[in-house]
Amino acid sequence: MIPAPPSGVMPDWLRAQAQAIPERLALAAGDARWTFADLDRRAAEAARRLASLGVRDGSRVALLLHNRAPYAMFAHALARLGAVMVPLNARLSAAELAWQLGDAAPELLVSEDDLTARAGEASRAVSALKHVALDGAGVDDFRRVPESQVPLRDEIDLAAVQGIVYTSATSGRPKGVLLTFGNHWWSAIGSALRLGLRDDDRWLAPLSLWHVGGLAIVWRSAIYGITMVLHDAFDPGAVNREIDDGGVTIVSVVATMLERVLAARGGRFFPPSLRCVLLGGGPASADLLTVCRTMNVPVAGTYGLTETASQVATAAPAGSAGKLGSAGRPLLPTRVRIDADGRAAGPNEIGEILVGGPTVMRGYAGRPDETARALRGGWLHTGDLGYLDGDGDLYVLDRRDDLIITGGENVYPAEVETVLRQHPAVADAAVVAVADATWGQAVGAAVVLQAGAPTAAEDLQAFCEGRLARYKIPRHVRFVGSLPHSPGGKLRRREVRDSWR
Amino acid sequence: MIPAPPSGVMPDWLRAQAQAIPERLALAAGDARWTFADLDRRAAEAARRLASLGVRDGSRVALLLHNRAPYAMFAHALARLGAVMVPLNARLSAAELAWQLGDAAPELLVSEDDLTARAGEASRAVSALKHVALDGAGVDDFRRVPESQVPLRDEIDLAAVQGIVYTSATSGRPKGVLLTFGNHWWSAIGSALRLGLRDDDRWLAPLSLWHVGGLAIVWRSAIYGITMVLHDAFDPGAVNREIDDGGVTIVSVVATMLERVLAARGGRFFPPSLRCVLLGGGPASADLLTVCRTMNVPVAGTYGLTETASQVATAAPAGSAGKLGSAGRPLLPTRVRIDADGRAAGPNEIGEILVGGPTVMRGYAGRPDETARALRGGWLHTGDLGYLDGDGDLYVLDRRDDLIITGGENVYPAEVETVLRQHPAVADAAVVAVADATWGQAVGAAVVLQAGAPTAAEDLQAFCEGRLARYKIPRHVRFVGSLPHSPGGKLRRREVRDSWR
Repeated sequence: MIPAPPSGVMPDWLRAQAQAIPERLALAAGDARWTFADLDRRAAEAARRLASLGVRDGSRVALLLHNRAPYAMFAHALARLGAVMVPLNARLSAAELAWQLGDAAPELLVSEDDLTARAGEASRAVSALKHVALDGAGVDDFRRVPESQVPLRDEIDLAAVQGIVYTSATSGRPKGVLLTFGNHWWSAIGSALRLGLRDDDRWLAPLSLWHVGGLAIVWRSAIYGITMVLHDAFDPGAVNREIDDGGVTIVSVVATMLERVLAARGGRFFPPSLRCVLLGGGPASADLLTVCRTMNVPVAGTYGLTETASQVATAAPAGSAGKLGSAGRPLLPTRVRIDADGRAAGPNEIGEILVGGPTVMRGYAGRPDETARALRGGWLHTGDLGYLDGDGDLYVLDRRDDLIITGGENVYPAEVETVLRQHPAVADAAVVAVADATWGQAVGAAVVLQAGAPTAAEDLQAFCEGRLARYKIPRHVRFVGSLPHSPGGKLRRREVRDSWR
Repeated sequence: MIPAPPSGVMPDWLRAQAQAIPERLALAAGDARWTFADLDRRAAEAARRLASLGVRDGSRVALLLHNRAPYAMFAHALARLGAVMVPLNARLSAAELAWQLGDAAPELLVSEDDLTARAGEASRAVSALKHVALDGAGVDDFRRVPESQVPLRDEIDLAAVQGIVYTSATSGRPKGVLLTFGNHWWSAIGSALRLGLRDDDRWLAPLSLWHVGGLAIVWRSAIYGITMVLHDAFDPGAVNREIDDGGVTIVSVVATMLERVLAARGGRFFPPSLRCVLLGGGPASADLLTVCRTMNVPVAGTYGLTETASQVATAAPAGSAGKLGSAGRPLLPTRVRIDADGRAAGPNEIGEILVGGPTVMRGYAGRPDETARALRGGWLHTGDLGYLDGDGDLYVLDRRDDLIITGGENVYPAEVETVLRQHPAVADAAVVAVADATWGQAVGAAVVLQAGAPTAAEDLQAFCEGRLARYKIPRHVRFVGSLPHSPGGKLRRREVRDSWR
């Protein structure tokens, strides 16, 4: 009697756009220019081939593909069959891939091009795994698979799992995050309510589709009816060309990407058509944000996780001039709670960031205990530390695991790193806990110097005097050639900590 | 363990905006200019006064107010208490109001200004009904009610009933439509996905807030964080001033309003800041649409109902040049099915319009049988006739009750009226069934002539020759001084039919 609740089933997003705006560009990637009608037709064709290969409702299909148009086609094709997408990181070694394939246990692996050899090597370690390549290349050729006449879905069940996306694992083993179509839908809606939505929007995601920040744009393109621009590899010059001449209105970046994009512009302002630079992947340096402010870059700081189908909180682009370094407020209807030892923290009080609402993942694939731990009490426990200011704007500090406790005082590595990076000779810095007999832990800093900048530990410590409380000043400084970052731009302090010993 | 589903509870929309964008204008009405912080504060204050008057979770509160700022304040105040709003049409007589008060059975009635006398008269017919006025005026003065210290809600339950909105009753007795917060939420989301969303949007609703087309904008203002502009009475000059000088970007109108707004402009084009003219309330004349096309008016045809919290389908503003008279495609995730005697009609086949999805009302207040009939099979049966073309665009024809069956042939009144209105002497026309001994029914036309245009029935019948099939040509023509329209602009054919006898 009562119509289906909002959590139920809705018309397939791509199909709906292919009917409404068939001629609008859905996808620009390399030389490919696919309208919504093109993408819809190709997705249906791919779905029928996948069905011939035995893929059906609930099947898991791993993709080891470059960041090109077919990736989006497969995402939609799998949705048409009710199958689950397992996107694999093309940068992983064969051994790492084999581990993920064993963990996710897909029935089919699709690869292409130069990735097929590595895919083949990885797949041999996994039993009962079929392997096809988009171009043959020694295994079955996907293009020669006949099209089954199986009926395809024209509806999307918000409760169904869309994909298993592996975390970038700044700590521990990567975990497969079960994301539903509902997670993606609500993420898209919350983002549109914060950033607005225009029918001429073009969203450039130089982020790979095996990361949630890239994958989210595939679904948003279909939900919003806007163009997604994909780049196979990050190229600052190509990003600038898209912005200057290609009409890109929104670009998703992490801090290191934005630094390189700005460096490649040589001081030229962005055109007004660029209305949002969505800046995620961990805290950006004050330097970068100051440059953005000077050059009137419409930066919208954001905090997102794989476990929440990307954005949790996002600042309005216009508001970024107001609060340097904030990730803004939670997207509607997402909730953020700062947990201070089991109670809700007050304004400006630091604690663990908890997230609630319809973008929170179903759980971790095959890990009931970790799922229960992460989602206890109805909240996602992110393991990230941060605070909400008096206005409700979120500031993200560090991974809880990275917190340094020295002589009973808490030291947040990001705060110390921010000061170190302000020193003219410092290119990058990672601050970690070092075992100390007297204080329990002491503050250690691994520092990358700018080229040709002879600097001693004492210089940096002197620089920190007056800028930081005494107990926060690094007691130990080491110089390194480079620091490990995740592909999403996050500093991997755990690796620094482990290698320090 | 699993986070709350999307159908659950979310942060109060107004509260969220008051925290995020406290200084942005929420409401412009007459001389009132209220920011989101103002509206939030006033809503909380009004909620505490309502609580002192005994209003609590589930209470029904009727409002007989002008279309001014306090109306929006009360809408939010009632939400803070979990109470249900019963907006009353200020144009109704005391007897009609008394009937609606008896039907909805509210505990409290709030009135103001010149409406208080009529409210008092109507309320005396209803037992156990408290009555306050915003300005005293002989009853209790709302402003003098003390503020209770009751805790206010800061969450919205999507499943809860927000209001009971009476249908404009183009046929039969008005019915109270139970609309939930979820209905309004999904209507806002579907509309934003079709029309886009900009942080500088200003939405002018010259429609009264006791109609769903006006009420919807109260919620959209809070959900989107944009400015709502309210007009107390429809004034074409004032609408034009808002558009030309006030930065209005979206305006909701019915055809007769748009005609008057255009007439008052004297051929001046609209500024580019006006990005959408949302045109609802029944089919517009070909003449009006042709003028809009010539003047490049960004018309978005729409089809909406009280029972669906406003829009069901809407054309994209840019697309209106393409299809004259279409209401566009269903909003995501609303579904439309055309029912032809129990089966789904094919493209271009006329049938009853059925609507499914999360904007469909909970039911009719106190009318379980009519609710069951309207929502049978999980679809809202609208009683409107229409068709979907090959692209999936909706065309709305007539109320099913208005269909004329003459000699076994179906005649759709709107089609005949459209031809009659093309005659230079015709100002308005209503086509209805007239009892006929031979044919069962015959086609009758009630016609309003332009001033100083002597015309005979034969002239009009001759005009229809060649333009319409013989059986559609009105057999009976009567001339009248005016025709009855609903406040939403819909022609009331039932009244014409009744008065014909």
